[in-house]
Amino acid sequence: MATTTETQIRFGILGCAEIARKISRAITLAPNATLYAVGSRSLEKAKAFASNNNFPPNAKVYGSYEEVLEDPDVDAVYIPLPTSLHIRWAVLAAQKKKHILLEKPVGLNVAEFDPIIDACESNGVQIMDGTMWMHHPRTASMKKFLSDLHLFGQLKSIQTCFTFAVDDDFLKNDIRVKPDLDGLGALGDEGWYCIRAILWAADYELPKTVIALRGAALNEAGVILSCGASLHWDDGKVATFHCSFLSHLTMDITAIGTKGTLHVNDFIIPFQEHESSFSLASKSWFDELVTSWDPTPSKQIVTTDLPQEAMMVKEFSRLVGEIKKGSKPEKKWPTISRKTQLVLDAVKASVEKGYEPVEI
Amino acid sequence: MATTTETQIRFGILGCAEIARKISRAITLAPNATLYAVGSRSLEKAKAFASNNNFPPNAKVYGSYEEVLEDPDVDAVYIPLPTSLHIRWAVLAAQKKKHILLEKPVGLNVAEFDPIIDACESNGVQIMDGTMWMHHPRTASMKKFLSDLHLFGQLKSIQTCFTFAVDDDFLKNDIRVKPDLDGLGALGDEGWYCIRAILWAADYELPKTVIALRGAALNEAGVILSCGASLHWDDGKVATFHCSFLSHLTMDITAIGTKGTLHVNDFIIPFQEHESSFSLASKSWFDELVTSWDPTPSKQIVTTDLPQEAMMVKEFSRLVGEIKKGSKPEKKWPTISRKTQLVLDAVKASVEKGYEPVEI
Repeated sequence: MATTTETQIRFGILGCAEIARKISRAITLAPNATLYAVGSRSLEKAKAFASNNNFPPNAKVYGSYEEVLEDPDVDAVYIPLPTSLHIRWAVLAAQKKKHILLEKPVGLNVAEFDPIIDACESNGVQIMDGTMWMHHPRTASMKKFLSDLHLFGQLKSIQTCFTFAVDDDFLKNDIRVKPDLDGLGALGDEGWYCIRAILWAADYELPKTVIALRGAALNEAGVILSCGASLHWDDGKVATFHCSFLSHLTMDITAIGTKGTLHVNDFIIPFQEHESSFSLASKSWFDELVTSWDPTPSKQIVTTDLPQEAMMVKEFSRLVGEIKKGSKPEKKWPTISRKTQLVLDAVKASVEKGYEPVEI
Repeated sequence: MATTTETQIRFGILGCAEIARKISRAITLAPNATLYAVGSRSLEKAKAFASNNNFPPNAKVYGSYEEVLEDPDVDAVYIPLPTSLHIRWAVLAAQKKKHILLEKPVGLNVAEFDPIIDACESNGVQIMDGTMWMHHPRTASMKKFLSDLHLFGQLKSIQTCFTFAVDDDFLKNDIRVKPDLDGLGALGDEGWYCIRAILWAADYELPKTVIALRGAALNEAGVILSCGASLHWDDGKVATFHCSFLSHLTMDITAIGTKGTLHVNDFIIPFQEHESSFSLASKSWFDELVTSWDPTPSKQIVTTDLPQEAMMVKEFSRLVGEIKKGSKPEKKWPTISRKTQLVLDAVKASVEKGYEPVEI
C-alpha cells in the first residue's frame, strides 16, 4: 500500500500486546507509514511478533523498549503498554523526540497524563490516543448530521454503552482486571469510548456534573467490572452511559436533538470493515391516527477503503509529516484525550464517593 | 371485520379525545368488539365523533358520560379522559358493571389507582390499561428472545427512551402540561411507556431503588416536560430511561443480557402498521483482529394483520367474553398497571426530593 510520493513515517512498537497486531496491519495499510521496529522485554517475543505481523525484512527487532526509543530512525512509537506504564514510557518517548500514538485510556488519571502532554509539548512531538472509531469516515458523516441545526437541531440527550462479556480466564488474569496494570477496568477499557462518544457529540464541551449510577460491580481488588454514569450540562443536556465486562457485546450511541435522532450500534468496531452504516431521523412525526411514522428513519451507508485504524495511522502520520516540514503538533488530539480522561476520573471518583455528584 | 361466531363486546366511549379516534377504529377492526355508544359533555361533539368514526347507524350518542354508564347494553367502556378524572369515572364505571379499558397513565398516583382496582375487583369487571404495544405480536417475539437463557442469558441492563418535540401551542394549551388535567406531563405520557418497557423486560420484578436524573425540565406550573431516572435491582440489574416533550421523536429499548442484546427503535408506535422489526444479537464476538463482528445482529421481521391497538381491543374483549361465560377477571393487567404507576410515582418523588433515591 505504501507509495513513494508521501513521506513514510517509520514506526516503532513498544511491546507485543494483542492490539499491536491490529495496529501493525494498520501501519502496513496506511500509505504514509512503515513498520520499522518492535521492542519487547523478550527478544524472542519481538522476533516472533515481527515475523508474524509482516514486518519488512530490514525491520529492527529489539529486546527492550529503550532500544526502540534510542533508534534515531524511529519517527514515531505506538505504545500499547498497560495504562500504569504510560507515564514512564510516553514521557521518555517524547524526550527522545518520538511522536506518540498512545493506547487508551491515556493514563490511570489525568495527573498521570499531564506530564505526558507537557513532555510532548516541550519536545515538539505529536500525541494522539488510539481511539480508532474517531477516524472512520462514518464518524465524520455522523458529525455532519449532528452539526446540522436544520436537520438535527440542538443536542438534548445522549445515551451510549459499550459492553462485552468476558470469560473466567479474563476475570482472573487479564491486565484489565489488575489494579497495578489497567487498573481502570471496564471504565478505562470500555467507558473510555462511551465518554469519548458523549464528548464528541457535545462538541467537547465538558459536563458540569458527573454522577455514577449505583450498583457498579467491582472485583476483589477494587477494579471496576461494570459501571455507568449520568453527565449533566448547564444547558440541560444530559448523557448516560453504561459499560460492563459482564454483558453481551453491545456498542451504541443514541443522540437526540430537538429536530433529529442519530442511532449507531457498532460505533467502536463496525460490523464490517469496509462498509458501515448509521441511522438518522429528522422531523419525524406520526401519521394522522398515530399508527406509523412519517418519515421513518433512514439508513446511511458509508464505505471506506482503509479500515478505521489505518485511517488513524494515516492521519497521525500526516501530522508527523507536517511537523517534519515545520508545522506545530496538532493540539486537538491531546486536548480531547485529556477531556476524556477528566470525565473518566470524575466517574471513578463518584463511584468511590458512594455515587455522589462530582463537579468537573 | 366482525364475525358472528364470536361474542361481540359492545363498547361505550367516554369523551371525544383524539386518541379515541384510533381506538374507535381498533374496535371496528377487532373481530369481537363493536362500537356501541359514545358520550360527551356536548351532545353535538358526540354526534360528530360518531359520524366521523364509522359508528354503526344504530349506535347510541349521549350528551354525558353518565348516560353511557347507565346504558345496560354497554359491556365495556374505553376511558381516554384526562388522568385527573380517572378515579371518578373508572370507579363509577366499575360500579355500573362496565369492563374498563383505561388510558395511561392510570392515575395521578397509585393512591388514585387503588380505588379503581378495588372497584373493579368488587364488581367483577376486567380492567386493562391502554398500553397498545404490549399487544403487538412483535412484543411476544421480543419477549421470547429475552426469556431464552441460551440465547439472551440473564438480563443485565436496559436503556429506554421516549421523546417527541411538541410545538408552542402544546406547551401552552395541551392537557399534558396542565397540573389539574394530565399533571404527570412527559413522565405520565412518555415515561409510562419507558417504565413499562423496563418492567416488561425485567419480568415485572420491581426495582428496589429509583433515582431521577438531575436536570428534569418543569414548566411554570411544575409539570414535568423532560426527565429521566435510573432503576436499580438487588441483583445488580440497572435500567435508565429518558422522556421528553422537548426532543425529536425517539422510542428505543436496548436490553442487554449476559449472552444477547435486543434493540428496537419503534417500540410504542411501529414505523409501519403491518410489518415491524427488531434486532437481536446473540453470542457475538469479533473476528481475530477485532475488525468486524461475528455474528452480526439479525433483523427479525414480524407481520400483523391487525394493528396493535386492535390486538389490544381483541384481547380485552376476549377476556370480557370469558367473564360473561363465568371466568374471573385477568389480574395480570391491573397488576402491571399498578407496578408501572408505582415506579412512575417513585420517579416523580425523586424529582421532587431533589433527585434523592426513592425506595420502592
